[in-house]
Amino acid sequence: MATAHTPHPYYPLDLVLDHYVPNTYSMKDTLTLLFSTFGAITIGSIALSYPKRHSTIKGLGNQLTFLWFVMCGFIHLFLEGYFSVHHATLAGDQHPLAQVWKEYSLSDSRYLSSDSFVLIMESITAFAWGPLAFFAAKTMYYNTPARHVAQLILSLGQIYGCVLYYLTTMVEGSPHCDPHPYYYYFYFAFFNIFWIVVPTILMHNSQGCSRR
Amino acid sequence: MATAHTPHPYYPLDLVLDHYVPNTYSMKDTLTLLFSTFGAITIGSIALSYPKRHSTIKGLGNQLTFLWFVMCGFIHLFLEGYFSVHHATLAGDQHPLAQVWKEYSLSDSRYLSSDSFVLIMESITAFAWGPLAFFAAKTMYYNTPARHVAQLILSLGQIYGCVLYYLTTMVEGSPHCDPHPYYYYFYFAFFNIFWIVVPTILMHNSQGCSRR
Repeated sequence: MATAHTPHPYYPLDLVLDHYVPNTYSMKDTLTLLFSTFGAITIGSIALSYPKRHSTIKGLGNQLTFLWFVMCGFIHLFLEGYFSVHHATLAGDQHPLAQVWKEYSLSDSRYLSSDSFVLIMESITAFAWGPLAFFAAKTMYYNTPARHVAQLILSLGQIYGCVLYYLTTMVEGSPHCDPHPYYYYFYFAFFNIFWIVVPTILMHNSQGCSRR
Repeated sequence: MATAHTPHPYYPLDLVLDHYVPNTYSMKDTLTLLFSTFGAITIGSIALSYPKRHSTIKGLGNQLTFLWFVMCGFIHLFLEGYFSVHHATLAGDQHPLAQVWKEYSLSDSRYLSSDSFVLIMESITAFAWGPLAFFAAKTMYYNTPARHVAQLILSLGQIYGCVLYYLTTMVEGSPHCDPHPYYYYFYFAFFNIFWIVVPTILMHNSQGCSRR
């Protein structure tokens, strides 16, 4: 029996999202908003770390690590936190953060269908790893002994979450992703791979402290 | 349109498991087999750690930790590894390890339906945390510097996996579990809570090393 459902651009094509309302922002608007915010966080992070440039945040590696923690804190707590809190109504939501998620969901509709794994993993990321990322930035700023444990826990949590995130849909043949390479390789693959690559480097660095 | 499917005892009741074949072992046989094996591993672990009772595995706390790592190594690599490799045919499989899974699946049918989250999480547990648990036992036995990092990574991986495991079905109202308290509280809740409680204690101990 065929029933008329609200049309939407997401995959799989038979996904029912009757509360879907199209974004008022264009893709370009959404990406401009997102990357402008990332730019502002980067400038703020550099300004914040500037007084420590000769002590605890010395050299490019440390400055990038500090920026990473601050950026992760904002992305986890606010962007992923917004999803965690508003997931049930996200497909019909026009808040700027909701529009970012509706654009991203072209590469993964599990964000609009409240997939149980994505919901729980993102909630842990938002409300455990988010504050821990800010804490890691703070331990670095003040060079406190908790630095490497915080970095190790945060990084392993991010890697495990991201590996599960990729593989839980890939094992099914990525049915939740628009197969266009722009969405699959840029949104789904590229936007997330940072949370495997950077934490792997940081974990490697943290493990060095146990051999000292 | 009603179709005749193979009857099975799992939840949700409309789950299609046409390759299901009932266990030849009774529940009591299966649990006896499982706990006898755990008993044998315990005896083996105590025998193995006996020569180190005055040095690296001194006192009840350390002996229990060593046993925990050895037990986790066996459970992750062999029991969970069996699921990871044979998940697609598990409902019709009569190998002793398959019969354990078919009994356990009364509390979580995701093991028989190859749920993508359970499959990926269990595969990582089997083939990453399994060898790491044996490695942690080895670092303890020989008191090598990698001890606390191995313990911390293993423990966080176990906690995160177990929290996701519980919550991904609980957020849906635990539809994969027989609602009888025996299955829900003994199999689902009790059998898994060890992988939150013990690693939390061990992580707390490991973090102590960063404050020294």
